[in-house]
Amino acid sequence: MNIHYADRMNNLKASIIRELLKLAERPEIISFAGGLPAPELFPVEALKKVGVKVLEEQGMQALQYSATEGYKPLRDKIAQRMARIGVEADGDNVLITSGSQQGLDFAGKIMINDGDVIITERPSYLGAIMAFKAYCPRFIDIPMDNEGMDMEALETTLKSEDRVKFIYVIPDFQNPTGKTWSVDRRKKLVELANEYDVIIVEDNPYGELRFEGERPPAVKSFDTHGRVVFLGTFSKTFCPGMRLGWVLGEGELLQKFVLVKQGADLQTSTLGQRELNQFMEDYDLDQHIGTILEVYRSRRNVMMEAMDTHFPKVEGLTYVYPNGGLFTWVELPVHINAQELFKKAIENNVAFVPGDAFYPNGGVDNTMRLNYSSMPEDKIKEGIKRLGEAIKEML
Amino acid sequence: MNIHYADRMNNLKASIIRELLKLAERPEIISFAGGLPAPELFPVEALKKVGVKVLEEQGMQALQYSATEGYKPLRDKIAQRMARIGVEADGDNVLITSGSQQGLDFAGKIMINDGDVIITERPSYLGAIMAFKAYCPRFIDIPMDNEGMDMEALETTLKSEDRVKFIYVIPDFQNPTGKTWSVDRRKKLVELANEYDVIIVEDNPYGELRFEGERPPAVKSFDTHGRVVFLGTFSKTFCPGMRLGWVLGEGELLQKFVLVKQGADLQTSTLGQRELNQFMEDYDLDQHIGTILEVYRSRRNVMMEAMDTHFPKVEGLTYVYPNGGLFTWVELPVHINAQELFKKAIENNVAFVPGDAFYPNGGVDNTMRLNYSSMPEDKIKEGIKRLGEAIKEML
Repeated sequence: MNIHYADRMNNLKASIIRELLKLAERPEIISFAGGLPAPELFPVEALKKVGVKVLEEQGMQALQYSATEGYKPLRDKIAQRMARIGVEADGDNVLITSGSQQGLDFAGKIMINDGDVIITERPSYLGAIMAFKAYCPRFIDIPMDNEGMDMEALETTLKSEDRVKFIYVIPDFQNPTGKTWSVDRRKKLVELANEYDVIIVEDNPYGELRFEGERPPAVKSFDTHGRVVFLGTFSKTFCPGMRLGWVLGEGELLQKFVLVKQGADLQTSTLGQRELNQFMEDYDLDQHIGTILEVYRSRRNVMMEAMDTHFPKVEGLTYVYPNGGLFTWVELPVHINAQELFKKAIENNVAFVPGDAFYPNGGVDNTMRLNYSSMPEDKIKEGIKRLGEAIKEML
Repeated sequence: MNIHYADRMNNLKASIIRELLKLAERPEIISFAGGLPAPELFPVEALKKVGVKVLEEQGMQALQYSATEGYKPLRDKIAQRMARIGVEADGDNVLITSGSQQGLDFAGKIMINDGDVIITERPSYLGAIMAFKAYCPRFIDIPMDNEGMDMEALETTLKSEDRVKFIYVIPDFQNPTGKTWSVDRRKKLVELANEYDVIIVEDNPYGELRFEGERPPAVKSFDTHGRVVFLGTFSKTFCPGMRLGWVLGEGELLQKFVLVKQGADLQTSTLGQRELNQFMEDYDLDQHIGTILEVYRSRRNVMMEAMDTHFPKVEGLTYVYPNGGLFTWVELPVHINAQELFKKAIENNVAFVPGDAFYPNGGVDNTMRLNYSSMPEDKIKEGIKRLGEAIKEML
């Protein structure tokens, strides 16, 4: 039997992270490889009450087919929360998706023809790269500093490439680097997008997880033309297992997302949407996020202190101090290959994600991503100590 | 601002049914237009108990990210049930999807290049046509009789077309016609697929809703090469709002579905999967289906009797007597345009779906689909009476 798959399938391979995570699952291993929220903080008790209430009061509607756009009261609540980051919108601007991963897939499906150019940060989120790859774009990744994307490099690219479809950014506590864009860069990004008439896809799963400082306005808040599509999610502030995210946009562009959602899975779980909505009515989501922040902040502190203590002080070894989110990012001396280090680390019973998977065009082998949200503090200390030893062995 | 969408978006238009359903939503209208299960039969009380139990016993896992393939105990249960229709499989052959609509989208994504040929029944399911259209195939639809697809016409097409990627069929109580394929046709379909080396996508959302007679073996049961992909769903036997379906297949082809699922939305709701699994452990799904069958059978009877009574006895007006599922299908005398009839019907406060949307290449204007699952019997009687009057006005 010969199966002739679509050409796009040549672009798709099983995620390396997925395979690594399998290795990292052995119980003796302290894993900084995943991107999991801390499950002990999930609002289990509240959800029990909320679930019963929704079924008691709206059982038939909650289990029936419903509008592709999503449950209106939930869409309204999301729109209201967006005002905090300077985005004026109402519920009609919101499409509920099955996690923000689905918004990424749809962005690709709606905009990318074979060979179109997608601009990303260097490095960028692996799941987005995978989602876009299914539509066969060419990636151009732009260097980052601590303020965000290099705007000169971006403009040079926009000037020379006429097939740019969109610029994909994660401006708050980026996955994988933990970096956050300055307000100036956000403004400049929108200016350039206006000038060169391209779309921006702003992916913001971590913005609400800020440990210190003021939350900057969204890139979307500077949008005057409806060219920024904002992707949000409840995976990090509520729970990931229910797959509840959203796309916020305007006009025809948003309608295309709705259209594609219809063909893809008709709608996101009616029950899940109504449970989340009820949770937001009966409980204080911000207070819940406050609890998460306390735990994650402390874990971030522990990880950073342990790195200061146990990582060798050598030239070329740097790491990001993240003010929020789930990750920090390590650059190793150039002669250390992170995949080799991974093998050594596994021998030392500690795991991380080698950074090369986050470069859409590959070619960078001396970086790694560390997650601090899902491990208790004593394990973080011990794990970083082991990792420091593995690094030292490779010097 | 100019947005340059992907070329595939030219193929996608908002579903006509969706617009019609909006009209049909007015409270005074008796609507046979939807495809909704009867919400009064949803297992609301059981789900309350199941939801609490799952959160109590497995709260942290039930709200966390989980494997793309789905929850293993649920996959195992699905595989076991498939034995009833002659399919030998285990849980590893099953991928949980967000409704079977998602399986349709994935089939298109995995297999269709621009201009490839997809063979469908004539007419076929609108949602599948929409899902496939996003990947820009050419549709060839093959005539049906009461035993299924015309096998001679199919072979002629397979002989003359070298870009056929798959044959899409709904062999049990087809949407929209309500027709069921004979066992011989199922066997012959697989034989032809073997001979011409093409894939079969078997979509089976209604097979478990059989009012009388024996359930025939699945097309998949005759598959000796792993070339049949079976799509199933709990939307009609449990509830549609939770979006729980599955793909059953083998080897590399199934792996492609998993890969595409990863990029599309990572996984289906962990909580939803575990709730369904718990429901199947604590309650008798077959008994629940039995309750649904009793109600739907009786509604089917009422609709068929009302049609016998109120539809005019004229040449060219025929309708299908379905032995299960949600729909019957009416062919009108050729001079009656179903879109025109729809307008008249709406004036008479009754609604249906004009059949043209179910023809992937259009061109047939004298058919309509009627749903009997979601209306109480007195409304079915009254609605069919009104519809009969509307038809008479157009003779």
